[in-house]
Amino acid sequence: MSSKKRLISKESDFGTWYDDLLSSAALADNRYNVKGFIVIRPDLFFIINSVYGMFEKELVDSGHDQVLFPTVIPMSNLRREAEHVKGFEDQVFIVESAGGEKLEEPLALRPTSETAVYPMLSLWIRSHRDLPMRLFQSVTVFRHETKATRPLLRAREFSWIETHDAFATDKEAKDQVQEDARISSKIFDELGIPFLPLQREPDDRFPGAEETFAYDTLLPDGHALQIATTHLLGHRFSKPFDVGFLDEKGNRLHPYTTCFGPGISRIAASIIATHGDDYGMVLPFNVSRRQIVIVPIPKKGEEEVSIREKCQALERQLKANGYRVFTDSSEDRPGGKFYKWEQLGSPLRIEIGHREVEQNAVTIFRRDLRERETVGDQDISKRISELSKEIQKTTREKAWSWFKSKLKDVSVRADILKIAKKGYIIRMQYCGQEECGNDIKKDSGLEVRGKRIDIEEEPSGKCAWCGAPSVRIVYAAKSY
Amino acid sequence: MSSKKRLISKESDFGTWYDDLLSSAALADNRYNVKGFIVIRPDLFFIINSVYGMFEKELVDSGHDQVLFPTVIPMSNLRREAEHVKGFEDQVFIVESAGGEKLEEPLALRPTSETAVYPMLSLWIRSHRDLPMRLFQSVTVFRHETKATRPLLRAREFSWIETHDAFATDKEAKDQVQEDARISSKIFDELGIPFLPLQREPDDRFPGAEETFAYDTLLPDGHALQIATTHLLGHRFSKPFDVGFLDEKGNRLHPYTTCFGPGISRIAASIIATHGDDYGMVLPFNVSRRQIVIVPIPKKGEEEVSIREKCQALERQLKANGYRVFTDSSEDRPGGKFYKWEQLGSPLRIEIGHREVEQNAVTIFRRDLRERETVGDQDISKRISELSKEIQKTTREKAWSWFKSKLKDVSVRADILKIAKKGYIIRMQYCGQEECGNDIKKDSGLEVRGKRIDIEEEPSGKCAWCGAPSVRIVYAAKSY
Repeated sequence: MSSKKRLISKESDFGTWYDDLLSSAALADNRYNVKGFIVIRPDLFFIINSVYGMFEKELVDSGHDQVLFPTVIPMSNLRREAEHVKGFEDQVFIVESAGGEKLEEPLALRPTSETAVYPMLSLWIRSHRDLPMRLFQSVTVFRHETKATRPLLRAREFSWIETHDAFATDKEAKDQVQEDARISSKIFDELGIPFLPLQREPDDRFPGAEETFAYDTLLPDGHALQIATTHLLGHRFSKPFDVGFLDEKGNRLHPYTTCFGPGISRIAASIIATHGDDYGMVLPFNVSRRQIVIVPIPKKGEEEVSIREKCQALERQLKANGYRVFTDSSEDRPGGKFYKWEQLGSPLRIEIGHREVEQNAVTIFRRDLRERETVGDQDISKRISELSKEIQKTTREKAWSWFKSKLKDVSVRADILKIAKKGYIIRMQYCGQEECGNDIKKDSGLEVRGKRIDIEEEPSGKCAWCGAPSVRIVYAAKSY
Repeated sequence: MSSKKRLISKESDFGTWYDDLLSSAALADNRYNVKGFIVIRPDLFFIINSVYGMFEKELVDSGHDQVLFPTVIPMSNLRREAEHVKGFEDQVFIVESAGGEKLEEPLALRPTSETAVYPMLSLWIRSHRDLPMRLFQSVTVFRHETKATRPLLRAREFSWIETHDAFATDKEAKDQVQEDARISSKIFDELGIPFLPLQREPDDRFPGAEETFAYDTLLPDGHALQIATTHLLGHRFSKPFDVGFLDEKGNRLHPYTTCFGPGISRIAASIIATHGDDYGMVLPFNVSRRQIVIVPIPKKGEEEVSIREKCQALERQLKANGYRVFTDSSEDRPGGKFYKWEQLGSPLRIEIGHREVEQNAVTIFRRDLRERETVGDQDISKRISELSKEIQKTTREKAWSWFKSKLKDVSVRADILKIAKKGYIIRMQYCGQEECGNDIKKDSGLEVRGKRIDIEEEPSGKCAWCGAPSVRIVYAAKSY
């Protein structure tokens, strides 16, 4: 925090920019002595916790109940759904002993909790009157990633929410997928994160799922990042775990189930990556620990009672208005404070010196545009309320405008190859053949991420890669 | 929930009462297939989450920052403080493999996080300007208990908060212990949980601590239950982990550290155990998911629009007043609803039938005293506000009055033996000899829990057990 130099440019070297920012703003510490595990420090914890709060509120409002399942899952549970265990067995951490003795049965650290939850659903669900059952938990999960790890983006322990929902009918399950999409869109919009809601290709589904829907954003280095997924599980889990209910006629049926997983760690990373600039983070109001930082600017050696009093009065006033306000009365010089709070992304800074006291005004600095304005004392509350909305709008629009500039229609193979390294999400006609997708990946490095679910896009003509008849329009990108 | 019979008497068989309540009110599920691990269901999760919120708010207000450390700790970290590892090595769960391969170093599931935190403190703390550093995290911890487990009371995974604080001076560390005591007292008081704040005997300290302070409540079966602890660690951890800071003169010193651990699972258990009666839970307003339940009471077969409308209007009004309100419009009969919400401990129930509509009034049932009263429509808000305070006062006073009736002064060995099985906390003159404490335990089953820290109690005369000169007045009880 002591160095005054700007970060390396985000555009030119995102990886270095990101790592430097996490470290120099004391957001996360990568030096914890287990590879792939990091320490979340207070300013990052606040962001993560705020994102949790936003999803938890929406989930509760839409009829979910919060629960907490054990961190450990018996290996025999994991093995009850064949595709599921195949998808995760290469990644699970296994507890084999406790108190110096070998356990009777090894326990997995949850990589996801279907196999912990479903045995309980089979006990809890008896009748159609028990449905729908909508549960979620906010926990960390564990996956032994073999690719290079990077804090929040790919880690061996990360924070997420997982819902586990059960319905009497297929239609309700499908409606829930829509509802999950509505919640995701609403929150990503409030956070100003641009995204595409996609239906994944059949070979790219969650292990065990009938359909997988996912929300992809784009990192500054041109890699698509999955930040939430929703899965239609049909009877794929309710059957092997023998979850059943009696319908009104007394028939025993299996419920249709879904699960939804907002990746809280990755959403926090997206906030940092999307809005940040070469001065540090640019935080939306809703996840900022210090929405307004007040900085007193005394003249050297002079009496500063009037400045201090004005700062205190303003802090009281703005706190009463419901803002999270912090007055930086430390002994650092104003320049050092400016640098620090810009790096930590506080949306507004208010500077109060002798000039401001004399003029019955304050200087407001907005982090997103890095612009100052003078506001008369009587107008402060009104102006801050306006600015909070303006900043949300401006950052969202800027993010979307960049994101849209990275979407490119491509209709022939040569063009796919030509722009493959440039970090675009391409939109193309696609034949729907798994082998074609594999070829695209092999030759261009791009992965087919699926088709839009928010709008209908009619296929026409031929697959941009192989020339076979197109069955859908898909989006492809380098994947994180 | 279908059975209409009351629970077994809490006084006569607390264990059965407790287990039956957790199961019949769907609070926790003990059938998860790993011994000592349970599933926390929605109504219990709400209580646990509310208690977390109360402590987190106080900790943040008193200068703590929330962080999140990894769940896993390298075994080599655990071994760096000799007493500490000795205290925990018989209890740790160990991850030995991941992704099908043996790990280079086995990882412990955190039994507590000192050995994860201190290596990072040694990187974060450099100068006296970095102090005090006050951190906390809200997590679950893992201990392979060999005694019989019981949900929330003794489990192999449980919810707690752990603070890790570092100070330049011994005095500040001791002040922090006082502050931890203030926070504990305040919250236990708000929850109506009676307790004794005690300094533990030297042989009963947290592994590695210089001093241990603990908050004990009493379960209905006469077992003392530790619900929070604070430890003065001196240099016991900062030295082996080489945490140091430069003071103003440039000398490198070790900080004095403390940790504080409110046992959130056990506090939730105490709320259930302390206030509950033979009809189920009796929840304080502050942790109740449904503070007010409205039950419409239609006459069979009759038009009930007026009742429904009155219920809806009242729900809106009370929600606007800030209460958590739920109208039970299910098809169950009123008697079944009464039973259910009494078991779940909602502090107030409002019954609305034709009589109430005609009389412009409602019937309010208060759970603590199980009493009904009629309140005119225009007085409802005022009366509920009064009742919320009255209920807090009544439940707290009832709990304290029972607790005090269980404290007994004892001055001779024969009396200790006589009342040992009766579930009292005894107050006695004590010689302070570890061997004497061991004898008391062996012969009477009582454990010396320590001396009061909230008041000065001057020793005089002889140890009530062995007759040696008394050095302090202590409290002893059967321990959970």
